[in-house]
Parts: sequence; C-alpha cells; structure tokens
Amino acid sequence: MNKPSLVKNALGRLVPVMINDVPVEPYLGIGKYKPRGRTHGRPIVSCADYPSDGNKLIPTLKEALVKSGLADGMTISTHHHFRDGDLIANQIFDIAAELGVKNLVWAPSASFPCHKPIIKYLENGVVHHIEGSMNGALGRYCSQGKMRGLGVLRSHGGRYQAIQDGELEIDIAVIAAPSADAFGNANGLYGETACGSLGFALADSEYAEKVIVITDNLVPFPCVPWQIQGNHVDYTVVVEKVGIPEKIVSGTTQITRSPDRLYLAEMAARFCQQAGLVREGFSFQAGAGGTSLSIGIYFAEMLEKGGVTSRFARGGSNKYLVEMLEQGLTDHILDGQTFDLEGIRSLNDNSNHVTTSPFTSYNYHGKGNFASMVDVAILGATEIDLNFNGNVVTHSDGYLLHGIGGWQNCLFAKCVILPLPLFRGRIPVVRESVTTLCAPGELIDVIVTERGIAINPLRQDLIDAVKGSNLPLKSLEELKAEAERICGKPELPQLGDDIVAAVKWVDGTVIDSIRQVGI
Amino acid sequence: MNKPSLVKNALGRLVPVMINDVPVEPYLGIGKYKPRGRTHGRPIVSCADYPSDGNKLIPTLKEALVKSGLADGMTISTHHHFRDGDLIANQIFDIAAELGVKNLVWAPSASFPCHKPIIKYLENGVVHHIEGSMNGALGRYCSQGKMRGLGVLRSHGGRYQAIQDGELEIDIAVIAAPSADAFGNANGLYGETACGSLGFALADSEYAEKVIVITDNLVPFPCVPWQIQGNHVDYTVVVEKVGIPEKIVSGTTQITRSPDRLYLAEMAARFCQQAGLVREGFSFQAGAGGTSLSIGIYFAEMLEKGGVTSRFARGGSNKYLVEMLEQGLTDHILDGQTFDLEGIRSLNDNSNHVTTSPFTSYNYHGKGNFASMVDVAILGATEIDLNFNGNVVTHSDGYLLHGIGGWQNCLFAKCVILPLPLFRGRIPVVRESVTTLCAPGELIDVIVTERGIAINPLRQDLIDAVKGSNLPLKSLEELKAEAERICGKPELPQLGDDIVAAVKWVDGTVIDSIRQVGI
Repeated sequence: MNKPSLVKNALGRLVPVMINDVPVEPYLGIGKYKPRGRTHGRPIVSCADYPSDGNKLIPTLKEALVKSGLADGMTISTHHHFRDGDLIANQIFDIAAELGVKNLVWAPSASFPCHKPIIKYLENGVVHHIEGSMNGALGRYCSQGKMRGLGVLRSHGGRYQAIQDGELEIDIAVIAAPSADAFGNANGLYGETACGSLGFALADSEYAEKVIVITDNLVPFPCVPWQIQGNHVDYTVVVEKVGIPEKIVSGTTQITRSPDRLYLAEMAARFCQQAGLVREGFSFQAGAGGTSLSIGIYFAEMLEKGGVTSRFARGGSNKYLVEMLEQGLTDHILDGQTFDLEGIRSLNDNSNHVTTSPFTSYNYHGKGNFASMVDVAILGATEIDLNFNGNVVTHSDGYLLHGIGGWQNCLFAKCVILPLPLFRGRIPVVRESVTTLCAPGELIDVIVTERGIAINPLRQDLIDAVKGSNLPLKSLEELKAEAERICGKPELPQLGDDIVAAVKWVDGTVIDSIRQVGI
Repeated sequence: MNKPSLVKNALGRLVPVMINDVPVEPYLGIGKYKPRGRTHGRPIVSCADYPSDGNKLIPTLKEALVKSGLADGMTISTHHHFRDGDLIANQIFDIAAELGVKNLVWAPSASFPCHKPIIKYLENGVVHHIEGSMNGALGRYCSQGKMRGLGVLRSHGGRYQAIQDGELEIDIAVIAAPSADAFGNANGLYGETACGSLGFALADSEYAEKVIVITDNLVPFPCVPWQIQGNHVDYTVVVEKVGIPEKIVSGTTQITRSPDRLYLAEMAARFCQQAGLVREGFSFQAGAGGTSLSIGIYFAEMLEKGGVTSRFARGGSNKYLVEMLEQGLTDHILDGQTFDLEGIRSLNDNSNHVTTSPFTSYNYHGKGNFASMVDVAILGATEIDLNFNGNVVTHSDGYLLHGIGGWQNCLFAKCVILPLPLFRGRIPVVRESVTTLCAPGELIDVIVTERGIAINPLRQDLIDAVKGSNLPLKSLEELKAEAERICGKPELPQLGDDIVAAVKWVDGTVIDSIRQVGI
C-alpha cells in the first residue's frame, strides 16, 4: 500500500504530497491556486504518415491497440457515455491480458458496475490502478486497500483540466462511438447505440498520444456532425456493438414516486420561487436522479404559470427538459450527457439543443466556463457537515461508491441547492464532519430537508430574500440535532491509516484523501 | 533589407535559412519533412481570473488591446472572412499608433485592398512586417522591398500548422464576429454582417496568448453554435459594425460570362466526365471565381443527367452549391468560407451544410485532413511551368499580388485540374520556369487550356482513362510553343537580389522566395 507523506490542506484535511509518484499540490482555497505553464501539446504528426484516402480502418481492436504501441505502464482512457452499458473497456483489458501487458493505468471518465471484471486485472497486474470515478464494486475494491496505486477522483471538469494541463497523460484513448466514418469523425447522435453527446471523450481525442475510434455504425465520410474530429484519430475499428442501448438509458430519467422525495423537490422549488430565483431569463441545472428531476418539473410549472422563459437549462438532457424546450419554457438546452431517447431525438432535430463538453461547461483552467453562469444548480450529496462542506463519493461507512461527476463544477452556479433527506436508513446526512470532503461549504448555499431548510450564513442575500416567507428555515445544527434525536448519534466509520484514493478539486489540487475501510 | 543566407531546396529554388531571425527548413519534397516535438500550448489560466458571470465586455477595442498587454514587437492576428469589407484590422493599428506601439507583426489569415492604410504603419514603424497573404497594394509594397521584415506566405492549412506547431506565435488575436455573446462565444451565421463560417479564426482562438472577440451583434448567452468558443476568449467588445456586408460577398460568386472562360470550364468538366471521375459518391472542390464556378454548374448538370449523387462538395459555398445540396445532387457541403447569402442561409438551415476549418480540411500536421479525400479539385494559377510546377502568388512581372489561400492544400486531392487561359494580356501562362514556385508539379495533374489539355505524365492512369476520347490532348511543351508563336517569347521579370518574402509549403518548409521587383 501507498504511504505517501501527508500535509494538512486549507480545509484541514490530511492529503498526500505525492500521488502515484507524482508531486501534487494541496487544496489552497477557492481560486487560490494559480496554475503556471502551458497546456499539454499533442505530438506534431504529418499527414504523410496517415492514409491519404482517409481510410484508417483496422480490422480489430487488438490490432489497433498493438499499432498504437500498447505497452507496460501506459495510461488507457475510455468514456462513460454508455454508462452501465459499455461493452468496450473490458475488452481493452482482456486484450492487454492476452498480450501479456502489465501495469496499465485505466483513466475512464467514469466506471460502472459493468466494469467489475476489471477487478481480476487489478488482481493479476494487468491494471495497476484506476484514475477516475469508481462506482460500485471497483470503488469497494479500492476502499479495501486492494489497488496497488492510489485512486484519483476528479470531477468531469477536473478531468478535462488534468488532461489539458498535462497532469493526466493518456497514451491511448479508445473512443466508442455510435456513429463514425473511416477517417474517425464520430458522434453519438445516431446508430443503434446512439447516446447523444460524446463530450466526455473530447479531451482524450485532443490530447492523447494515440486515438482509436471504435464504432458499430460505420457511415461514409463525412460523419456529421463530428463531435470527435477525425483529424485527431489514428485508427478506426468496426465492431458489432459498442454499448447496450437499454443500459445507456438508465434509471436516471425516472421521476421519483417517493412522497418524501417529492416533498423535498417541492420544497426546493418553492425556495427558489420565494427567493426570486425563478425569473425571466433564469437558468438552471437539475442533475439526473429522482429528486432533482422532479424539481425541473416544478420549475416548468412555475415558468408556465408565470409566463416567463428560462434562457437555458444545463445538464443531462431527458424528455422533461426536451418538453420544456419544445414548449418554449426554455430557449436552450446545453447538454453534456444525454439520458434518454427524447434527448437524442431533440439533439438531432433542434439547433437550440446543443452538445457541450467538459471544456465548455466545466474546465476551471479555461477563460471562464458555463457552470458559473448558471443561476440555480440542484444537486445531491451523501453527507453535509455543519460548515456546509459536502461529500459525494463515500458513504458514511467510509466506502468509496460514487464518482464526483460534474458535482464540484456545478457548485460554481450562483445558487447551489442540495435537497437531501435528513437521514438515509437511519444514518443522518448532516454530520459533525463529512467522511470525505469533496467541496468547501462556501459554495453550497441551501440544504433542503424534509424537516427544514438551512441557508448558508454566508448568503445573507438569500436569507434576506426569503425573510417573511413561510419556508421552514432552520440552522444546520438544528437539523443535525433533529436527525440525531430520531436516529441516535451516528457511529464514525472504521478507517485505517492507509490512503487508498485522493479527491482532486477542480483546479487539480488535493482536497481530501480516502482511507482504507475496515482494518 | 534582409539578406539572409540562401540554400537550394529540393526543387532547386534558393530559399533563406532564416526568416525574420528564426531558422527555417528548406522544402525537402512532398511528405519528406518529419515534424518533431509537440503542438504549442496555451498559457494555463484559471477561471478565478475571469468574471464568474461570463461577462467579458470591455467598452472599447482600445481598452481591450491595452488590457491584453499590447506592446512593441507583438504579433496581432485577424481573420479575413469579411474579405475586402473588413472594418477591424485597420482600427487595431490606428489604436497601436495612437498608443505609440512599434514593430508589430500583423498575421492576418489574408489581407485585402481595404487594408491599404496599413502601408502608412509599415512606413512609420508601427507595423514591422506582415505574415500572411498580401493581396493588391500591400503585396506591391512588399514586392518593392519596402517592408522591413520578410513577408511570409502560407496556405490556409499552413497557417493553421504554423500556429499549432508554435512556428507562428500570436500574442493577441482579434476576432471580428457577426454574432457573439458577452462570454465570447461567436459565430458568423447571423447578424447584419453574417459571413458564414469563422473557421479562419479557429487556430487564433485556440493558440493565441490573448483573444478578443469584437462584434456588432451581441446576443444573450449562449450564442449558438459557438464556432469560436468563449472559453478561449479574454475580452468581448461591441462596436457598431465589424464589416461591410456588400463587400463580404464579392465578385467571387459570379459565373463568368466570358465565352473563352466558359469554354475552359466546359473542357475541364468534359475531361472529368471522360476520365470517369464524375461518378456516384464523387467529391469535388471548385474554387471561387468565374471559371471554377462554372465547372461546378457543369458538374451539377452531369450529376443530374447521370442520376448520380456527389457525396460532398468542398469549398467556399455559394448559391450554386446550395442548389446542388437542396436538389439532392450532393449529400453535403463542407464549407470553409461562405461566399454569399444563400450559403449563409443554408448553413443555418441544413445540417448537411457543415462549417469546416483549416484544421479539419487543410492542416498537414494532423492525422490526415479532408483535402486529400476530395476526388477532383479545380483550381487556378498565375503560371505553370513545363514540370507542372505552379505559381499563384506573383504575376510574371514578379509582383506579389495574391495570397495562396487553400490552393496548396487542395493540391492533395486525387485529381487536380487547372483550367487556365494559354495567355493573359499577351503574357503566356505556361513558362519555362515559374516566377515563384508555390507547388511541386507532381501534385498538379491536368492543365486545361482553350487550345488543348495537358495531362501530367506522372498520371498514366488519367492518360489511359481518356485514351480514345475526342479531347484535344497535348503536351505542355506544345501548349507553350503555341502561346509563344502567338505572343512571342515572354520577357523575364526584372528582379533584384534581395528577398522580400518567403513562400512556405504546407509542412512549414520554405518552397520558394520572392525577390524585389524593379531594381
């Protein structure tokens, strides 16, 4: 196991000074870290070394990986637009195992339960460690201290930043595409495995040493639009199927039926209305998942009743956002990740439904990004502490079970609201201190629970805005006490001293570390 | 004047080993130069240093230039999508003069007669030299040896390559945009000065140290589509007018009425048909200008009669290409530069009319580009020599009067046809040796003149394909002799020893130099 030296960062969290043998900076505060240097350069290549007819087809993924120079210690990346329906990542490591390659780093934009087979490659040395979200079994494996390298968790924007800045160097990017031409132009808009945007693979295409596009729907040149540009692509491979469509569109698009969650959603929406946030030209991002989604629907109702129009809605798009677009309740959808078939249809049909990327929306090392222009972001969390610090990656038992997604990035919205149940399975959500600190409380403005709404004392403007309303305002301390009256004081997780993963902030600094569980 | 050491390149042309104090490589042959190193990195910046509400508006261009750190010796770039109707470039240097800044390098994607006022800044030291096409008066000024630095001529693709590779480092890019939001997202698709694609400014936006977007049509965020991404933009400026619409759409969209030129066009089109090039799925690029344009129309007729469809048409788009797209004669227009209002309308309306950029279409230091996938390219030239070498920048009197445009890049098409009058104003076009060698003859396949068609002996396949046809096939020697019988043997230009400009090949090597005229 890794035992790097630790240092206390600006939030008082002990973080490693080296991650997988590379020095890192501790978190310094919001906007405090000033990056130096220049963005990572691609190797300068020549058209003379690529087929002049644009035909980069290679018969198999194995041959493409061999031609790309697959070798021990390389970093291989994949994207997660197919979510739990991805069929490609496991194949890459099956091939690597077959070729006897060792110590690879897998840098997915996120991993899902379907990637559980990769545990055997972590066991036998084909894969050294994972840099990227680890949902489910892989996260549990990492938590148990079984991965040789440190896991590195980044937000979607942080992943773009790390690749752009040369902090995460990708040797081979394998980009699964629902449609592509032989030149490598690709998109996710049509084909049997259409998944909408391919934005999570953008940085990989732009900065990796070698880029392989793998598709199950080869179209004649030009494949338009080319969200992935063939000019970045080395090899194109055609396979029978790159993803399982039914699993691409997962449970994220279901409105919650739980009366408790619907109550949370309604309260959050009411808060926004009372605080004057739902007004002409307003913008919002409602994350996927039952509660957030329901809030989107409340917003739609409010807009319709108020006769006002939202300028844009950000987010994973779904049928509810598409309805708002088509009813004129929002002028635009800025879509980073497409969650259902209606979203895909709309992306194809409506020029105001626009694909975004982690570069445009989230990259903190850019000249601004879209996230900070959003008026209201509705997000989730596993825990929140009395300073409004939030956790989204570990459960209160210390297990790493979720990725950060765009969560850290979305916190830069003008008003961040977290509708949270006061407890989950008798485990209180409001803690003395979060198990893992994924974001500083100064960015989290409002906690909406079924037993009251807490406004961050830093946001006097919001406190003033809802003064005199009938909203059940409470302090986080009161909410915590209430939860503990019902559930009892929560036990602290049993954590070892060893660090198994590090959590990066949006600027590449280390905001917290995750300790081994159950030793 | 500059007197750098000269060296003979692979085509036997004497070229400088240094350009403006930077070492350069002589042309080595097609695909022979192997680039090294990595692409140029942008400075890594932080969102903390940009307004979180996305509002980057600065009241005046002057203030934006000052904030961008405008200083002596900097390189300032502009694009030429407004062609002779540009209203911005001159203003930049007016401001620089007012601020007392000296020795700037102007790196336009092309300059036009409207930029003649910049001669006074070349005279008084505000501008040191121009790196970019010099059409008209500026070219004449350069030819006369009056510019202090060497002019550097690059193709559209070569300009992207040079910027990407860090060979041409831009300090401040000023991007005039028909539509933009305060964040700097911009496009040329709507607004009173709509000009279609803004692709020529892409490299500038991606690689310049500072980027200013200047617009006369500020729209609320988000300005979609964002061909220029606000995430690259430092400052946004609103002015009354960025271009003169009537001049954006210039004479390039007129079909020639000259019977001689129409005859050339018809011959070129007949050649393509007889050689079997006009077939299902074929692709073509017909440059702007009377003769080329007329060929596009002949192609349309052939496709319609033959019941076949072109897969894509590349190029400056205009109403004739749009008609073909709308009649189903071509599946796609891949549009680098939009020449008329019908082109702009179609770009807005038709998802198969797609904006391209010098990166996708022309960059030779990419993993392939679109140009080499084109079946037939119809281009012009000022001169051609007996080895099929071509000149597009100087006249036979030695004066530098034209830019390269996409010409060098388009030569990578599978069949390159130059319809040329045998002589212009009694000056023969076929020469013993071209005044300036802009491209090696091995890339030029067919010369079509009013007195016969010459096929490059290297293209035995084309010679075989038209064997037995009634096309008037001749050798270039025969065509030259015929011209000289009529016009007399041409005089050689009176050139001095001093070099005034260098012509770069698509890979950044120096293919020829341009000498001072009339000394």
